[in-house]
Amino acid sequence: MLSRRNPQLNRHGELIHLLSIEGLPRATLVQILDAASSFLMEGREVKKVPLLRGKSVFNLFFENSTRTRTTFEIAAKRLSADVLNLDIARSSTAKGESLLDTIANLSAMHADMFVVRHSESGAPYLIAQHCAPHVHVVNAGDGRHAHPTQGLLDMYTIRHYKQDFTQLSVAIVGDIVHSRVARSDIHALTTLGVPDIRAVGPRTLVPGDLREMGVRVCHDMEEGIRDADVIIMLRLQNERMSGAMLPSAGEFFRSFGLTADKLAKAKPDAIVMHPGPINRGVEIDSSVADGQHSVILPQVTFGIAVRMAVMSIIAGNDAR
Amino acid sequence: MLSRRNPQLNRHGELIHLLSIEGLPRATLVQILDAASSFLMEGREVKKVPLLRGKSVFNLFFENSTRTRTTFEIAAKRLSADVLNLDIARSSTAKGESLLDTIANLSAMHADMFVVRHSESGAPYLIAQHCAPHVHVVNAGDGRHAHPTQGLLDMYTIRHYKQDFTQLSVAIVGDIVHSRVARSDIHALTTLGVPDIRAVGPRTLVPGDLREMGVRVCHDMEEGIRDADVIIMLRLQNERMSGAMLPSAGEFFRSFGLTADKLAKAKPDAIVMHPGPINRGVEIDSSVADGQHSVILPQVTFGIAVRMAVMSIIAGNDAR
Amino acid sequence: MLSRRNPQLNRHGELIHLLSIEGLPRATLVQILDAASSFLMEGREVKKVPLLRGKSVFNLFFENSTRTRTTFEIAAKRLSADVLNLDIARSSTAKGESLLDTIANLSAMHADMFVVRHSESGAPYLIAQHCAPHVHVVNAGDGRHAHPTQGLLDMYTIRHYKQDFTQLSVAIVGDIVHSRVARSDIHALTTLGVPDIRAVGPRTLVPGDLREMGVRVCHDMEEGIRDADVIIMLRLQNERMSGAMLPSAGEFFRSFGLTADKLAKAKPDAIVMHPGPINRGVEIDSSVADGQHSVILPQVTFGIAVRMAVMSIIAGNDAR
Repeated sequence: MLSRRNPQLNRHGELIHLLSIEGLPRATLVQILDAASSFLMEGREVKKVPLLRGKSVFNLFFENSTRTRTTFEIAAKRLSADVLNLDIARSSTAKGESLLDTIANLSAMHADMFVVRHSESGAPYLIAQHCAPHVHVVNAGDGRHAHPTQGLLDMYTIRHYKQDFTQLSVAIVGDIVHSRVARSDIHALTTLGVPDIRAVGPRTLVPGDLREMGVRVCHDMEEGIRDADVIIMLRLQNERMSGAMLPSAGEFFRSFGLTADKLAKAKPDAIVMHPGPINRGVEIDSSVADGQHSVILPQVTFGIAVRMAVMSIIAGNDAR
Repeated sequence: MLSRRNPQLNRHGELIHLLSIEGLPRATLVQILDAASSFLMEGREVKKVPLLRGKSVFNLFFENSTRTRTTFEIAAKRLSADVLNLDIARSSTAKGESLLDTIANLSAMHADMFVVRHSESGAPYLIAQHCAPHVHVVNAGDGRHAHPTQGLLDMYTIRHYKQDFTQLSVAIVGDIVHSRVARSDIHALTTLGVPDIRAVGPRTLVPGDLREMGVRVCHDMEEGIRDADVIIMLRLQNERMSGAMLPSAGEFFRSFGLTADKLAKAKPDAIVMHPGPINRGVEIDSSVADGQHSVILPQVTFGIAVRMAVMSIIAGNDAR
Repeated sequence: MLSRRNPQLNRHGELIHLLSIEGLPRATLVQILDAASSFLMEGREVKKVPLLRGKSVFNLFFENSTRTRTTFEIAAKRLSADVLNLDIARSSTAKGESLLDTIANLSAMHADMFVVRHSESGAPYLIAQHCAPHVHVVNAGDGRHAHPTQGLLDMYTIRHYKQDFTQLSVAIVGDIVHSRVARSDIHALTTLGVPDIRAVGPRTLVPGDLREMGVRVCHDMEEGIRDADVIIMLRLQNERMSGAMLPSAGEFFRSFGLTADKLAKAKPDAIVMHPGPINRGVEIDSSVADGQHSVILPQVTFGIAVRMAVMSIIAGNDAR
C-alpha cells in the first residue's frame, strides 16, 4: 500500500498526513506524544489554543462512529478550528458521485484537513494521494487496516504510566484478526522498542503471521498475560464476525475475558487498557473495567490531546 | 427521586446542576431570572458574551427534539462555548453500551456540561450522580417528570409582563397529566408565591392529586380561566395519548380550546402562553395565538436568555 | 411572484434578502462580485473575517443537499457567524407545525439569517415576507425556480476568466426545463449584458418560451456550442425526470454529452462549467471534466467567496 516514499512525510521527512503508524520513524511518534503532553494540564485538563484558528477540518465518516467523530470534533475545536461534519451517507456520493470527485470538491471548498473513516482499507491513502496539496488527511480508521490515532493514544497511555518502553511486556488480548487497533498498536510498540509483545486469543481470532512481526502468539490467556506490564483488551466485534469463528460470548469470556483472577497473573502494577466501548462480561469483567488497574477512561482523555497533537503537527508542515 | 441533600446544589447551596425546579429555593429561581434579564437588551436582543469560552457543552438528546436542542445550542454558542451535538440513537448506546458507560466516556472527553433529554423520568438525575465532578447537567426534559428550563422561561415571561408574582391568578389548561411543563410550572409558581394556581382540563387529563400541591382543579374551561392574569395553554400531546382518553381533537377544542370568546372571561390584560409548537384549532384558536394577548413568541426569545443564565450560573459553581 | 416593490430590496434599493437574480439591478450583481473578489487571496485562498461575529445563521434545508449546505456553512463560519443546521425533516414541521409558525419561532430564537432550500418554488419568498424584520433570507434553491448563489458564482467564474461580459457567447447545455441553475444564469447573464445566450438540448428538455427571454434555442449540440466562449453543462437530473422525456443516458451522451470532439467547435479558449456533482459519461466526458478547459473546481472555490459576499452584504443592510 505504501509507495516508495512514505506518503505521510514530505521531502524533509515531516509528517503531513497520518495514515498509518507503519513506517513512521520513532522520532515522529515521540514528537506526537510530546506535543500531546503539552496540551494536558495536570495530566487531564485540556486548554483551548488558537493553533488551527481559521482552518476548516472536515469530518468524513463514510463508516459511522459517533464516538470517534466526537473525539476529533472536540480536538479540532480545542485547536480553534472550524469543524464541518459531513453526513456522507446522505451526500453526493449517494447520488453516484465518485469518492475522488467528492474529495476534489471538498478540497475546492477550502478544506484544510480531512478526518476520514472508511470501511475499506486504504481509502485514506487514496484520498491523501489525490487531494489538493494544501489538504492534510488523518486516518480515523480504515477497514481492518489501521487506526493510528488509537495506536498513538495507547502509546501515550503506556508512557504516562510506565515511562520507559524498552523494559515492557505488553499483551494484546482478544479479536486480533479483525482489529485495526491491534495492528496499529503492534507497529507502534515495535517502533518504540517494546521487547515483549504478545497476541493472545483463540486460534480463529489471532493470525499466525503475527510471529513474522516479532509478536509472540499465545492461545492460552493465563500464559499470555503472565507478568505483563500492560494488558490491552480488544472489543469483541460481534458485528464483524461470522458465527462460525466463535462459539458464544459466554465461552469467550470463560477463556479470554479479563477477570480479577486472571489479572492476578500479570505484574502487580499492570495497567488494563481497552479502546472502548467495552462489552462488560464479554471481554472484560466489570470489577476489572472499574478497578484500580484500569486506565480505560484516562485513555479517552489522552485521546483528545493526542488528536490535537496530530492535527497541529501536520497542519504546520507543508506538503511540498 | 431526590436524595437527602438536593443533588442540584453543592454544600454552599449553590446550583451545580439544573434537574428540576422542585426543591429549589426561591432565591435560586430569582437569581436565574435576574441573570437572564442581563442577557437581553431592550427586552429582546441577545448579545454574545465570553462566559463559557473554552468550555464544551454536549447535547445528549436520547429523545429527539430539534426545537429544544436548537435553543440550547444557540444559548451555549451565545456564551461562546463549543457545542457538540451527539446523535445518540446512532452512537455506542446503540451498540449496547450502557448509559453510565457512555456518560463516563463523554466526561473523559472533557465535557463541561451535558444537556440531557430522555424519555425516562429521572435519567438526568442518574447522570448527575454518576458523572465526573467537573461536569454539570441540565435537564432538557425527562419523561413526564420535569422540564425545568421551560418552567423558568415561563416564570421569566410572567415576571416580564406582570412583575409581582404574589397577586396573580394563573391557569394551566389542557393535557396536564402528560405534561412535564405543567409540573415544572406548578413548582415554580408555588415557590415564587403565586396564590392562585388552577389546573384546567377534562377529568382524564388532569390528575386529582394536584390538589395536594395547592392547585385548584377545574374541569370547566370558563370557570377555570375566569379572571386569570396568566393562561398557560399546553400542547395536546397526540402522540402520547391513548385514544381512549380523549374523544377527538374537535371535541377537545370545543371544550378546552382557547378562543377569543373564552379568553374574554379572563382579566382584560391577561397574557396567553404556550410552550410550543402550537396546534392551531386544537388547543388554541389562531386569532388568540396571533392576537394581542399572546406572548408565545416572546417566550421563545426569553427562553434563550434563561438557558444562557442557567448554563452560566452552574458552570461558575464548583461541585465540591 | 414578485410584489410591486422587489422584496429583496429595502426602500433605499439595498439588498436585504437574496431570493432570485430576476429583478436585481446590474449594480447589485457587480457589488456582490466585487465583494466576493475581496474575500479571495491570490484567486483562491479564503481568509476568515469577523464580519458576522455574534450573528446566528440558520441552515433550513427542507430539501436535503449536503454539498450546498456545506458551502453555506463554510462561508458563514469564515465570516465568524454561529451556524445552526436544522434537521428539518425531524423537527416540528414533522409534528404538523406550519412553515410560518416554524419560521416565527426560529426568528424569535434570535436568528439573524435563514439559508433556505425548499422543493417548492417560492418558499423563500414566503419566508422573507413573514419573518421578523431583523432576519435576512438567502434562497439556496427553491423548486425549479431559482438558485441565485449558483447563478452568481457562475458569473464570478465567467468574469474571472473572461473579464468583459458584453462580448461573450454563452451556451447552457442539457436539462434546462428542470434547472433552477439555468434560470438563474439566464437572468444574470442578461442583466450583465451578455449579447449571445444559447439554450442547448433536446426538445423535451428545453422550453420554447426561453426565446421570449432573448435566448437562442438550439436542439443541435454542435450548432449550439459553435464559437462559444463559455459552456455551462447542466447536471442530468435523473431523479426528477419521468422516463418518457429521455430515451437513455447513453443516447443523451451521444447527442448532448460534452466530449473533446464537440468542444473543438467552441472557441479555442472556451471555458467549461458545471454546477456539480457531475455525471461522468452522461452529460460530460471525463477527459473534458478534468481537462484544461474545465473550470469546474474553481467554481466551487469561488462559490464560497460569493456566498460570503451575499451574506455580508445583506447582513449589513437594514430591512426598513
